[in-house]
This record gives sequence, C-alpha cells and structure tokens, in this order.
Amino acid sequence: MSTGAQALLRTLVDGGVRTVFTNPGTSEMHFVQALDGAPEMRAVLALFEGVATGAADGYARMAGTPGATLLHLGSGLGNGVANLHNARKGKSPIVNIVGDHATYHTQYDAQLQSDIETVARNVSPGFVRTSASTAQLGQDAAEAIAAAQGPPGQVATLILPADVSWSEGGSAAKVPERAAPPRASEETVQRLAGLIRGGKPGDTALLLGGRALRRDTLMLAGRVSTAAGTRLLAEVFPARIERGAGLPPVERLAYLAELASVQLRGIKHLILVDSKSPVSFFAYPGKASDLVPDGCEVHTLAAPDEDVLGSLDALVEALGAANAQPLLQEASRPKPPTGPLTAEKVCQAVAAAMPENAIVSDEAQTSGLTFASVSAGVPAHDVLTLTGGAIGQGLPVAVGAAVACPDRPVIALEADGSAMYTLQALWTMAREGLDVTVVLFNNRSYGILNIELQRTGAGEAGPVAKSQLDLSTPQMDFVQLALGLGVPARRVATGEDLTDALEHALAEPGPHLIETVVPSTVTGARLKVMPYALNALAKLPLPVARAIKGKLAP
Amino acid sequence: MSTGAQALLRTLVDGGVRTVFTNPGTSEMHFVQALDGAPEMRAVLALFEGVATGAADGYARMAGTPGATLLHLGSGLGNGVANLHNARKGKSPIVNIVGDHATYHTQYDAQLQSDIETVARNVSPGFVRTSASTAQLGQDAAEAIAAAQGPPGQVATLILPADVSWSEGGSAAKVPERAAPPRASEETVQRLAGLIRGGKPGDTALLLGGRALRRDTLMLAGRVSTAAGTRLLAEVFPARIERGAGLPPVERLAYLAELASVQLRGIKHLILVDSKSPVSFFAYPGKASDLVPDGCEVHTLAAPDEDVLGSLDALVEALGAANAQPLLQEASRPKPPTGPLTAEKVCQAVAAAMPENAIVSDEAQTSGLTFASVSAGVPAHDVLTLTGGAIGQGLPVAVGAAVACPDRPVIALEADGSAMYTLQALWTMAREGLDVTVVLFNNRSYGILNIELQRTGAGEAGPVAKSQLDLSTPQMDFVQLALGLGVPARRVATGEDLTDALEHALAEPGPHLIETVVPSTVTGARLKVMPYALNALAKLPLPVARAIKGKLAP
Repeated sequence: MSTGAQALLRTLVDGGVRTVFTNPGTSEMHFVQALDGAPEMRAVLALFEGVATGAADGYARMAGTPGATLLHLGSGLGNGVANLHNARKGKSPIVNIVGDHATYHTQYDAQLQSDIETVARNVSPGFVRTSASTAQLGQDAAEAIAAAQGPPGQVATLILPADVSWSEGGSAAKVPERAAPPRASEETVQRLAGLIRGGKPGDTALLLGGRALRRDTLMLAGRVSTAAGTRLLAEVFPARIERGAGLPPVERLAYLAELASVQLRGIKHLILVDSKSPVSFFAYPGKASDLVPDGCEVHTLAAPDEDVLGSLDALVEALGAANAQPLLQEASRPKPPTGPLTAEKVCQAVAAAMPENAIVSDEAQTSGLTFASVSAGVPAHDVLTLTGGAIGQGLPVAVGAAVACPDRPVIALEADGSAMYTLQALWTMAREGLDVTVVLFNNRSYGILNIELQRTGAGEAGPVAKSQLDLSTPQMDFVQLALGLGVPARRVATGEDLTDALEHALAEPGPHLIETVVPSTVTGARLKVMPYALNALAKLPLPVARAIKGKLAP
Repeated sequence: MSTGAQALLRTLVDGGVRTVFTNPGTSEMHFVQALDGAPEMRAVLALFEGVATGAADGYARMAGTPGATLLHLGSGLGNGVANLHNARKGKSPIVNIVGDHATYHTQYDAQLQSDIETVARNVSPGFVRTSASTAQLGQDAAEAIAAAQGPPGQVATLILPADVSWSEGGSAAKVPERAAPPRASEETVQRLAGLIRGGKPGDTALLLGGRALRRDTLMLAGRVSTAAGTRLLAEVFPARIERGAGLPPVERLAYLAELASVQLRGIKHLILVDSKSPVSFFAYPGKASDLVPDGCEVHTLAAPDEDVLGSLDALVEALGAANAQPLLQEASRPKPPTGPLTAEKVCQAVAAAMPENAIVSDEAQTSGLTFASVSAGVPAHDVLTLTGGAIGQGLPVAVGAAVACPDRPVIALEADGSAMYTLQALWTMAREGLDVTVVLFNNRSYGILNIELQRTGAGEAGPVAKSQLDLSTPQMDFVQLALGLGVPARRVATGEDLTDALEHALAEPGPHLIETVVPSTVTGARLKVMPYALNALAKLPLPVARAIKGKLAP
C-alpha cells in the first residue's frame, strides 16, 4: 500500500520511464517528496515548462523509451504546449504529467483553477485522462505509458489531482501489452514492388519519415534504391535522422515549397514510409498547399502505426534486393574556415570539427541552410529537427538528448530568435553538467520572417513592419546570457577562433556556448524568392542540388 | 475596400485599441505589413509570447482600454497561456489575436497545424471566434473588443486565418454599444445597509476586489467604514489596488489560508464588492478550502458585471454616510536600511525611495512579504499583483504598465524563480526605453515551495526533493542576464548601495535592474507553518498584524 504519488512513480519506473523533466508547484509536492523513494527515477529540474517538455521530447527521440514531464496546472501545461506540439508532430512518446488541484477544490475556482483538459487536447488528442482516484492511478499511468509508446508515439497526458496523489491506497500497475504493429500486407508489398520494378529509375521514390530514418531502415531503403533506381527522400523535419559517412544518403525535402516542388518533379509513384504526403509548410496566396505533382500517385508502404522495419524488409524481399549493396555516403570533411565568419563558414567549421557519434539538435533556421551539405560526409551522427515548427525547441531537445545519451557529444545549432523562447535550458545544461556545445548564430533578426514577408506577397514592408522582424535593438549578448545561466561562453569573429572554440568546447566536459555574430543569410526586403531558392539548394547533397539547379528558372 | 488585416487594424484603432504586443510568424505577415498604414497603432515586439500576453494585461490594468496581442498559431498561443490565465483571473480586457493557417490549408495538417480553439477556451471561455471571412472580420473584431471590455473585462480571442487577413473585401466595423451595467437593486442596498447598521463594529466587512480597489471606490468604502465600523478587506491578489498616503487603508487577505482564516474570524456578514467568496489558494490535506468562517453569511453588493462605483455610492447614500470622512492613511516612510541586505531590508529601501505616483508590479513572492507594511504610508501608488497565480507575470506586466503610463515610474519587485519564466521582458523594456526599475530578489530557491512542501504535509523532504526546490546550482547572475538583454544592471549587497542604486535607476530614463542577493525568508525543510504564519503577519498593516498575532496559537 502506498500513496498515489508513490504508486505512480513505481509504475513509471517499472514501465521503463526513468527520467522526468520537472517544473513543479504546490500541487506536485507529494510527487516531488516521493522521488527520494524511487531512486531509479532521475528528476531533471527546468526553470520553465517549455524546457521540460522539449527535453522530454529530445530524451524520447534518443532513448527509445518515453520521456516524462511534471508540470503545474493549466498554466504550466500552457508554457509547455509549444514543445509538446513539436513532440506530437514528431510522434515522440511522452508521458505528460500535469498536476491539478485536489478534486474537491476545483469547485471553488481558486486563482490557479482552469480547464486543463482543453489545453491538453491540443497536444494529446489521443490520450488525456484525469485520474479520478488513488486506487486507479497506477492503472491510469500504465495505460498512459502504453498510449505514449505506440506506435505511433504520442503525448499521453495524465492529469494528477493533488488528493489523488497524496492519498493512501495506491498500487503500481503493469504496462499493458500491445499487439505487435502489423507489417504491410503481402498484397500491398507485391503491388508496390510491381510499381517499382515496372518504372524507369527515378519514376518511384520512397518518402521516408519517423522510424524509417534510422540506420536499419535506411539500409533497407538503400537496397531498394540500388536494386530499382528508386529515389530516397526524407520528410522536411525528421524527429531523428541518422546520416553521415557509411550511411545511405537521403535527400531531405526542402522547407520552401518552391524548392520541394522541384525536388518532387518527375516522380510518378511516391511511396510513403512512416511519413505523410508532402504539403507546404504555410499557405501562400495563389500557391498550392499540396505539393504532390500532377500525375503522381501516392501510396503507403507503412503507416506510422505499422511495422516500418518489417514492411521495408518485406519490400526488399519482394524485389529480390536482399543482397543489393546500398550506396553509402563516402567519408569527407570540409576544411576549417578562415577569416571573418559568415553563417556558411560557421556550418563549415562545425562540420570540420564534428566528433564521432555526435547528436546535432538543429534549430539554426536560415543560418543553418548549408549545414546539411557540408556535413554530408562527416562521421555518422544523428540530427534532430524542428518537427512541429514551433520555435524554441533546439536547446531543450539538446538537454534531453544529452540526458539520454551521456556518452555522446551533443551539438546544438541555434538561431538567436529561436533561442530566446527557451534560453533557460542553458541553466539545466549547467546544473546537470551536460556535454552540449551550443553554436549560436546571432544574425540579429528573425531571418526567416524576412523571407516569409516576401513569400506571402504582403507587399512592400514599411519601417514599422521591418522593425517587427529586427532583433538588433538592443543587441543581445549571448555570452553574457550564457554566463548568467552558468554556462561558459565565448564570442568568436573568425573561422580560426571558432575552430579553436569548438575544439575546446568539445574536449572539456559540460556545456559551452559559442556565439557567432553573422550577417543574415537573407537581406530583408530586397530578397527575391528564386535567388533564395537557388541558394537553398546548398541544403541538399551536392549532386542533387546540381541536378535541380539546372531545372530552375533564373 | 481594404484587406482583412487593414480592416482589422482600423477597427481596433477606431475602437480605442491603440497598442498591440506582438510575437508574429508567417501567418501574421499581412497584419505586420498593414501596421505602417495604421500609425495610431503602437506595435511592441516581444521575444516570447508570454511577455506579449503579460504586457497586454499590464497595459489593460493601467490604460483602462483593452490591450491587444498578436500571436502565432496554437503553439504561440500556448506560450502566452499562463499570462492570459492571469489576465482572465484579473478580468483584464484583452483582444487576443491569434493568427492561423489559411482556411483551405488546415486540411493538410501541416507542421504547425493544431486545434487553436481548444487552447483558447482555457483562457477565453466567454469569447473564442475564428473569423470565417474577410467581409466579416471587421465585425468579428468589433465584437471581440466589446466582449473584452465587459464589464467584467475578459480575454476575447479572435483567431485570424491567413487568407481572411490577406484577402481584399474587408471593412472596419464599429464596436457595438453595450447597455450600462446595472447597479445593485434598491432592495439589495437597503437590506445590506440594514445589516451594516444593525451590527456591532467589526461584525460586517466589505471584501473589495476588481474595480472596487481604485481611489473613487475606496473613498466610498471608507465612508461606509467610518459611518458604521465596517471592516475593509481586499481580495488576496488584486489586479490593481491604489494605496498609500491619503488613501483609505485596506487589509489584504493573506495568501496563507491559515492566516486569512484569522483575518476573517468574527465577521458575521461578508459583503462582496466585485470579489468572490474567499477560498484557499491550494487545497491541503485535512484543511477546508472554503475560508468563510462558520456562522458568517456572504452577500453580494455588486458582482463583477455590475456597476461597482454606483452600487457603493447607493450604499453610502442608504447609510447616510455621504459626509462621513474616510480614515485616510497618514504619510510615513521607513528609513533607508543600512548594512548587509535581507529581503526585508530590500522592501524597506524600495519603500524609502518610492517616488510619487509609482506603479509597483509585485511578483517578489516570499521575499516581498514585508513590502505592504513598510510601504503603507509612502506616496499614493498602484500595486499590480499576481491575479492568477501563474508565475512569470511580474516583468511583462511592468512592460505593459510602462507603455500605458509613460509618465509614471514603474517598479517591478521580482523573485528569481518567477523572473526566469519571462525574463525576455527585459529586452522589450530596453527596446522601448521604458522607465522600469526591476528590483530582483535572488534567494536562489523556490522559496514558496519550501513553504508549500511543509504545508501539504508531504513528509520529510529527502535530498532529491530538496534539490527540486533549489536554484543555487548553478547560481544565476541577473546582472549578466540583464546586460545580455540590453538593460543596465548592478548587484548590491548593502542597504547603502541599494539606496544609491535605486536613486540612480529612478532618476535615469529607461530600464534598470538591481540584483539583491538575499537569504531565503524561509529556511527550507526546517520550516514550520505557524512560525511562518506569524512572520507573514508583517504583510499586513501593523495594527492588524498585532491584533491577529495575539489570537494565533504559538
């Protein structure tokens, strides 16, 4: 017999949930008090809920087990919504625990009373449960874990009233077994194999997402590509993609619809593997949202709730491609850059310095455009991207990844504007001594919005509009900000100094921040879309970029 | 004829909404572009949505007209929820504009797609509207303004699809007239006057909240008190209370239920004036949530949707108290403190330095306990408090108050833990050159949770639990954090230096931050509730505190 909080913690620990990212308040005090009785559970404190939720996401992406959160009531959940949104879109398994007032207290509409479930449904459409009794809490938690795990992974929100937590009568429960996810039917596999065999090279493409961008699945996709000339594409913003030397290279769809359309041109059969049919990130006046080209059919090999690895394996078998050798990325490294920095040189310097087995949390936005191309051949690594488009994800995800993988170096490529949503993550990095190297691109603007203002056709921007995208007044000093949060930091102006700073940061344990002040990749109102699209080609592997470049109008 | 965005801006401006606190994204670019065509609208950029929403709240509290926001989709709204929650609880009028994808784009479930309305309902239960067409947008905005204004004020959420914003065919609309709010019925007034006249002094109390804590209403309440011995109480966390020399002193209910119960003891008739019946902030095992003492009847003179000033006036008339002289607070100031600082000395130094007509945004939590008592007799000022209990409100509210009242000095009393939710507010203070003096109490802990851990009876805290409330590893350096965001800052260790820093900050235009490193008011796990409650008496006016102290068990 135990309290609800004790039963909850025991259920989590026994269910494989061993880390909880917290920002607790009064209604969570019994959970906090019970932590000392569950030493298998690591509690990582954040100064802001968006850090806790983003860290749980980063942890889940890398650990393969659910991340957990502990948040305080509806407003704490609100602060965590943006990164839970990213987790939802990335299908990360998260047990999202939100404390609530005691069940009998809600009727009084006290100051912090609000409708938690309304907020939770935004990020947890598949599982929101307010645990109604201490006796039931263990079972509710076990079901939340099962729901979070999927597949597909999801954010399962468990709302925990204070009296359910503090009362006696709890007992731990076992996570219910779920049936193994089905693999693609024989009929589907044979039909798709027939399409692939029947077409010319380049007629078919696998659009890989979610679980399909890991080493084992990529190797299978690579066999299909070698055997049948099928193109390998990746979704725009993968939760986790393994890439680099020795892995099959995959062409990531571009953020810009103009460019993604070019990438998709000529494909007759687009086969989804744990991904969705490509659509424009935003809508633009007079432009299509659906990016599937005319005459292209979209098929599904494996949906997110199916057995992705098994389905790809079946396709390989059906194509007789089990012995086909996937094309693997050759090892290569750019030279360290020299002279005054640009965003491109920063990307180059990072690629030149990247250690074995790194994890890259990429939220560099416009400044990181060239990172993918310059790092294509560096030692194998994971890249974690902005799955849901809600900025402020990069630093928290880096926290979670570093907690999940203490033996791997984490590099966070971070834009100035995005950093300022969840900068508090630096404090948690320092507190936990996490090996995270933050490379901060400070271009003193919302660079992406300078592009978008043009793309939406909103017309000429006047001084007030331009000022809304400008972060130069006052200038932010990220070295002081990092030092203020306990993270050693340094500002660099040249390639040589950046290389030196990276070497030092990667060699010394604990977090470091390197601020690079760089010109904006785009030049505000004078930007035109097509030149930018041309520029953006650099984001793709070079051969692909060259091929596409020839097809673009000037 | 104009675009939707232009019609929306014109409707806002003509409807008296002249300031919008923004954190826009792509779907808001047409609104941003249209700002140059509406020069009457001031757009104040924030680096984080919680700053924008809290600033809109602070603005609304002081300006008397609605504040407006411009947020980006469901995740941007999520980031703003905590301070919108505070605004909802404080009944601040806010037009909360949330951009959305184009209407035809939502079907594609793009990365940033989410159910915005679910989140909005948490903070806008009375008005959430997704504008369905450009032709209708002006009218939708006009109705949102009317809904926001009330009374009671509320957060009215207007969801703005990108195509509704960018299309032609919009026209501005006029804010619909609302019937004047009713005053209390003659029957109610006579009945309450009878109760007041029939009781002994102290039998009755007015519990003043919302609109009832302003100079004009306080003077009326003071006449009632003088004429009939009625006690004057204020709700725990007023949105705005006018106080200081020359104003009727009012006893604010304590945050701690143990103490509030003592304050309420002996009252036979509690009369609500734009307030709600007192309840405990949180629930605690074995303690009542409802704080109304046995045998006390609760009555309502004026509900939040009624004419508060007119109803109080009618009560004064019914009591024949129109010529009664309210007891007014005598002018007094504490001496500036000397020697090493404590939280109490910081409060004393601020009170000693407070200029005429200041606005105090109070989010100092445990460190600010004694501020109310030491500042009771300083020049008349406004205090804005944490209405909804969602921390991270103090700095944004200070931003909004300073924008609304450019000729008044704003002082933000801010706790370290709370500051870290919305520290980005400092950047907006610097950008806009706002006259805000931030006095930062750095006690390196979640002081309030050290109290709450005891109060909830969670049992002895082990090292893990204690660590969850501890902010000392690493130590945050708020001077560096402020400098990093463009705000001049200084750390002080003695009363003399603090007085010097305050004088300088108050004299020099623009924002300043003064960091005071102070011992925690409470001492962690060794704290016992009753000694704390005794200590907390200092928050009350001294005579009241003395009176209560005698009744408390040791």
